[in-house]
Amino acid sequence: MTAYVPRLEDHNFTLNHVADLEQISKLNGYQHADPDTVTTILDEAARFFSEVMAPLNRSGDETGSKLGADGQVVTPEGFKEAYQKFVEAGWSAAHMPAEWGGGGLPYAVGVVIEEMFKSANLAFSLCPLLTHGAVEAVKQHASDELKETYLEKLVTGEWAGTMNLTEPGAGSDVGALTTKAVKQDDGSYRIFGTKIFITWGDQDLTDNIIHLVLARTPDAPPGTRGISMFLVPKFLLDDAGEPGERNDYKIVSIEHKLGIHASPTCVISFGDGGEGATGYLVGEEMQGMRNMFTMMNAARIGVGMEGLAISEAAYQRALSYATERIQGRPIGGDTTDSVAIVEHPDVRRMLLTMRAYTEAMRCLLYITAEIADFATHADDESVRASSMERLSLLTPIVKAWSTDIGVEMASMGVQVHGGMGYVEETGAAQYLRDSRIAPIYEGTNGIQAIDLVLRKLPAENGAVVSALITEMTEVLTKMNDYDDLGPFRDELTTAIQGLADTSTWIGERLRERDLDSALAAATPYLRQFGTVIGGWLMARAAVAAKAEPAEHHEEFLKNKVLTARFYGEHLLPTANGLISTVKAGGSLLEEIDFEA
Amino acid sequence: MTAYVPRLEDHNFTLNHVADLEQISKLNGYQHADPDTVTTILDEAARFFSEVMAPLNRSGDETGSKLGADGQVVTPEGFKEAYQKFVEAGWSAAHMPAEWGGGGLPYAVGVVIEEMFKSANLAFSLCPLLTHGAVEAVKQHASDELKETYLEKLVTGEWAGTMNLTEPGAGSDVGALTTKAVKQDDGSYRIFGTKIFITWGDQDLTDNIIHLVLARTPDAPPGTRGISMFLVPKFLLDDAGEPGERNDYKIVSIEHKLGIHASPTCVISFGDGGEGATGYLVGEEMQGMRNMFTMMNAARIGVGMEGLAISEAAYQRALSYATERIQGRPIGGDTTDSVAIVEHPDVRRMLLTMRAYTEAMRCLLYITAEIADFATHADDESVRASSMERLSLLTPIVKAWSTDIGVEMASMGVQVHGGMGYVEETGAAQYLRDSRIAPIYEGTNGIQAIDLVLRKLPAENGAVVSALITEMTEVLTKMNDYDDLGPFRDELTTAIQGLADTSTWIGERLRERDLDSALAAATPYLRQFGTVIGGWLMARAAVAAKAEPAEHHEEFLKNKVLTARFYGEHLLPTANGLISTVKAGGSLLEEIDFEA
Repeated sequence: MTAYVPRLEDHNFTLNHVADLEQISKLNGYQHADPDTVTTILDEAARFFSEVMAPLNRSGDETGSKLGADGQVVTPEGFKEAYQKFVEAGWSAAHMPAEWGGGGLPYAVGVVIEEMFKSANLAFSLCPLLTHGAVEAVKQHASDELKETYLEKLVTGEWAGTMNLTEPGAGSDVGALTTKAVKQDDGSYRIFGTKIFITWGDQDLTDNIIHLVLARTPDAPPGTRGISMFLVPKFLLDDAGEPGERNDYKIVSIEHKLGIHASPTCVISFGDGGEGATGYLVGEEMQGMRNMFTMMNAARIGVGMEGLAISEAAYQRALSYATERIQGRPIGGDTTDSVAIVEHPDVRRMLLTMRAYTEAMRCLLYITAEIADFATHADDESVRASSMERLSLLTPIVKAWSTDIGVEMASMGVQVHGGMGYVEETGAAQYLRDSRIAPIYEGTNGIQAIDLVLRKLPAENGAVVSALITEMTEVLTKMNDYDDLGPFRDELTTAIQGLADTSTWIGERLRERDLDSALAAATPYLRQFGTVIGGWLMARAAVAAKAEPAEHHEEFLKNKVLTARFYGEHLLPTANGLISTVKAGGSLLEEIDFEA
Repeated sequence: MTAYVPRLEDHNFTLNHVADLEQISKLNGYQHADPDTVTTILDEAARFFSEVMAPLNRSGDETGSKLGADGQVVTPEGFKEAYQKFVEAGWSAAHMPAEWGGGGLPYAVGVVIEEMFKSANLAFSLCPLLTHGAVEAVKQHASDELKETYLEKLVTGEWAGTMNLTEPGAGSDVGALTTKAVKQDDGSYRIFGTKIFITWGDQDLTDNIIHLVLARTPDAPPGTRGISMFLVPKFLLDDAGEPGERNDYKIVSIEHKLGIHASPTCVISFGDGGEGATGYLVGEEMQGMRNMFTMMNAARIGVGMEGLAISEAAYQRALSYATERIQGRPIGGDTTDSVAIVEHPDVRRMLLTMRAYTEAMRCLLYITAEIADFATHADDESVRASSMERLSLLTPIVKAWSTDIGVEMASMGVQVHGGMGYVEETGAAQYLRDSRIAPIYEGTNGIQAIDLVLRKLPAENGAVVSALITEMTEVLTKMNDYDDLGPFRDELTTAIQGLADTSTWIGERLRERDLDSALAAATPYLRQFGTVIGGWLMARAAVAAKAEPAEHHEEFLKNKVLTARFYGEHLLPTANGLISTVKAGGSLLEEIDFEA
C-alpha cells in the first residue's frame, strides 16, 4: 500500500486553469507568487507532506493523543519532531501575512498546501487550522499591543491557537454560553467556566497555547449580543515576552472519539484555582460573535477542504488496492486468468466516482480561495465587494457539500477494499472515521443549509445567486466546440435550469414567509447547488483541458476530460432528482408526531 | 438515553397489513401461527431482546471478543449467560423446522425476531445468523446420518454453525480457493488450508462449533465446479454423540475491525497439526457451490435485515437524543425560550428520513420473508415456483439496497447528535461502525447489482421484473380514494414508469451484448429499483392505514400515513434522478486510464 502522494499535476492544473493563478498573482502584494514560483513551492510541499506527515497518519490514529497524569496532553510519537520541521520550513506561515512573519502567499496557494496536509494527516492538520483561525481574529480585531505580543508567534506556528466556543449547554446555540469574564483593575479579565470540544485544546508541540475564549461580562445582555472574546494564554508572558507562569485553567479530560484520534478534543475548566484564568479582551466588549465569525468563516472553508482532502486520500488508497488486488475474471471477457479488481466495471465506477467528486471539490475549493483573494486584495472596491458577496454565498456550500461528499467517498473507499476495508490495518476505515466529524463541527451542515437559504439566497434580493447562475451558463457556449462534451453540456443545461427553478421557488416561499417550506428545502437545495457548481466547474476544467495547456501531458488532459464527462453524465444528473424534494414543502415535518 | 425498544405496533402493522400474516398462517404447517398467537410471541421477543441483548451492545463493542493465550476466543462479559437464555427461551429455533426441534414459525415471523435481535445487538446476532445458514445447508444437502447427528443441536442453538468460504486469495472469487480435502478409508476427509474472515469462527458460548468448509478434492477441476462442502466440528463426537477429541485446526488470529467488535472474525488454519482436520462431506463432491448458495441466499436476506435493524436502532437513539437535547430557539417563532432540537425543521427532516427509510425497508424485508414462506410452503406448485422467482429477484435488492441505506441512516443518526455523535459514549457512532460491514459481506453490493442485472432481470425473458412492475401499479388506483395521497400517487406513478424505462433499456443492452453499459448501470439501477419498491410498499402501508385496522391506535395510523407520504414526496423522487446515470453507458469507465 503506497502512502498519500499529492497528484501535483491536478493541483497545478486546477490552480492555473480553473482558478487563475496568473490573475491572482497580479493582485497587490501577491506579485511574488507567479505560477512558476508557486509550482516550485508546491513541489516542495508535496515532498514534505508525503514524506513527513503522511507516515504519521496511521500510527497517530492507533496511539491517539492522551491526557497524562500531570494534566498535560501527550501527542503520538513523532508528532513533535514533525511539527518542528513544519514550522521551520515555514509551511504554517505560507499564506499568512508577510508583515507578521508569514510567507504572504495568496490564499489560493495556501489552500493547496492545506489540502496536502489534510490528505496526509487530517488529525494533525487541525492544529494549524485552529491557529490560522486565531491569527485572523487577532489580526482583524485585537489591539496593537496584543498583536505585537502574540501575532508573529501564531503566524509562524511557534505558538498555537485554539477556539473556545462550545459549552455543555451551548453548542450550535453559542448565545447560550455562561462562561464569565470579570474585569480587573489592570484592564485584564478573569475567566471562569467550562468549555468542551476544544480541538487541540492542549498539546506538547508548542511552548505556548493561545486560547481565544468566548465569555460573558457580568452585566452583558443575554444571547449572542452579550458575548465578548478573550485571549487566554496557557502561560502568561514574563517581562521578556517569554512564557512564564501557568494560567489558571485545567484540562479536565479528552474525548473518546470515532476518529481524528491524534487530535486531542479537550474539556477545559477555566478559573478552577479560584482566582480565575487571566484573559485579555480582543476588540471591544460584546463584539465576541463578530470576532468569532471572522475565525469561523475561514475555518468553514478549511473544514470544507477536509472533505476534499479525505476524498483524495481515500481515492488514492482505494486505487492502490484495486490495482494490486487480483480477484475474479472479466465478465464477458475471453480470458480465464484472474485480473486486478480495477478491471471490473463496478470497481471502476466507484473509483471514477471518487475521482470525479474529488476533482470537482478541488475546483470549488480553489476558486473559493481565489475569490477570497480578490475580496481582500483587489484594487477595485467594487470587485472586493462583489467577491465578498460571492465568497459569502459559497462558504456554506463549500463547508456542507464537500464534507457530506467527503464522508460518502471515504465510505466508498472502504467498499472498494471489500472485506479488507473493514479491517483497520488497511487505513481505509480510518478515512471514514476521520471524515465523519467534518459535517458536524464549525456549524453543522444543517446550519450551513439554513444559512444558505435564509441569509445567502435572499442577499441583494437574490442577485448574488442569480449572478452566479448566469455566469454558469457561459461555459455552455464554449462546450459547443467539442462534440464529445455534448451529453455533458445537455445535462449541465438542464441542471442549471433546475437550480434556477428551485432558487426561485425558495425565494418565493421566503417572500410569502412560508419559513417551514424554506427550511425543509434547505438541505436538499444545498446538495443540489453543490452538485451543479461541481458540474459547472468540471465543465470549465474540461474546456480548459481541451485547450491543451502546454505544461500538461496529453495523457493527463485526456483523463481530465473523461473524468469531467463522467461527472457530467453520471453524477450531475442526480441534482435534478432533488427538485421535487426541495419543493415538497414543510407540512409533513410539522405534522408528524414523533413521540406518539 | 433509553436503549432500544422494539416499536411493536409498527412490526405488527407491517406484518399484518403490508405482508399478510393471516394468509401466511393458512399455509401448510403454519396453522399454529395465527395473528393473535404471533402478537403474543412478538411481545415476549420484544421484552427479551430489549432487556437481555440490548444492554450488552455498548459493552460488547468496548470490550470486543478476544483471542486468549490458549487459542480460544473469549466473548465479552455477559454474552455467555445471555446466549444461554436465548437458547433456553427457544428464540434461536423460532422459525426453524419443528421436526428438528425448532418452533416451526413462518419465516415472516422469524425475520421480525431477527430484526429485534439485530437492532438490539448486531454483533451478537451474527452468531445465530451463521448457525441458521448452516442449518439450511445441512437440512437440504447433508446425508440422513449427518442430519441425525448435528441438525437438532444446530436448530436449537445448543451448538453453533459457521461458514468457511474466504481465503486470502479467494474472496468474491470463491472459485479460486485452494483448501484441500483428502478422502480417508472410512469415508471421512482430511482438510488442509487457511480460511479467513470466519465470522464467529470461535467462541465460548456453545459446547461445539460446526464449521461448514468449502474445499477442493485432489482431482477436482479448477474454479467453482471443483468445490465440495465439508462439515468440520470443533470437537469430534464420541460414541455417545458428545463432543470429544479436539479437531485439528487452530484459530490463528482475530481481525481488528471498524465495528461489530463483539463478533470475532477469525483466521482458521485447518490441518496444522499435520494429520488434517476431520471433515464429513455434505451432499456430493463438487456440489459445494450449490450448497453454499443455499446458505448464502438466506444469509443475504439476513444481512439485508441488518440495514433495517441498524436504521431502526439509530433512529431510536437519534430521536431520544433530539427530544432530550435543549438547544436553540425556533426560527421565525415568537418564543425566546430554547427548545428540544426535535423542534427544528432540519432535525425533523433527518429524523423523518430515517423513520421513512426504516419503515420502507421493514415492508420490503417482511414481504420478502412472506414470499419465501409461499415459495416453500404453498400447496400450489405454480405459486411455489412464481414465489421462488420473485424471491430470487428481490434477494439482491434486499441485500444491497437495505445495507447501503443502513449505512446512510446510521451516519444521519450521528449527525442528529451533533458533536455528541462523534463521541463514542453516545453509541451513535457504533451504529455507523457496525453498519459498514453489511454492504461488504455475503457478496459485496456491487456483486448484488451484477446479479440483479445479469441474472435476475433477464430471467424468464424479463417477465419476473415486468410482473412486479405491473403489480406495483395496482396500488395507484387505491390511492385515488384519498386526496392527501395525491402527490405521493403522482410521484409513484412517475417513479414506476422510470423503473420500467430503465429496466427496458438495460434489457436491450443485454440483448445487444453491450455488457459494459449494463454493468455500468447495475449499481444505480439497483438503487433506483429499491427506492421504487420502497415507494410501492409505503403506498400500500398508507392505504392500509387509511382502512384503519381496528387493532391500531388512531395516532399510530395518522403517523403511518404521514411517514409514508414523506417517503413518497421527499425520498422517492430521487429515484428518477438516477435514470440518466443508469443510461449513461459504460464507455467512460473503459476509457479512463487510472494509472496514467
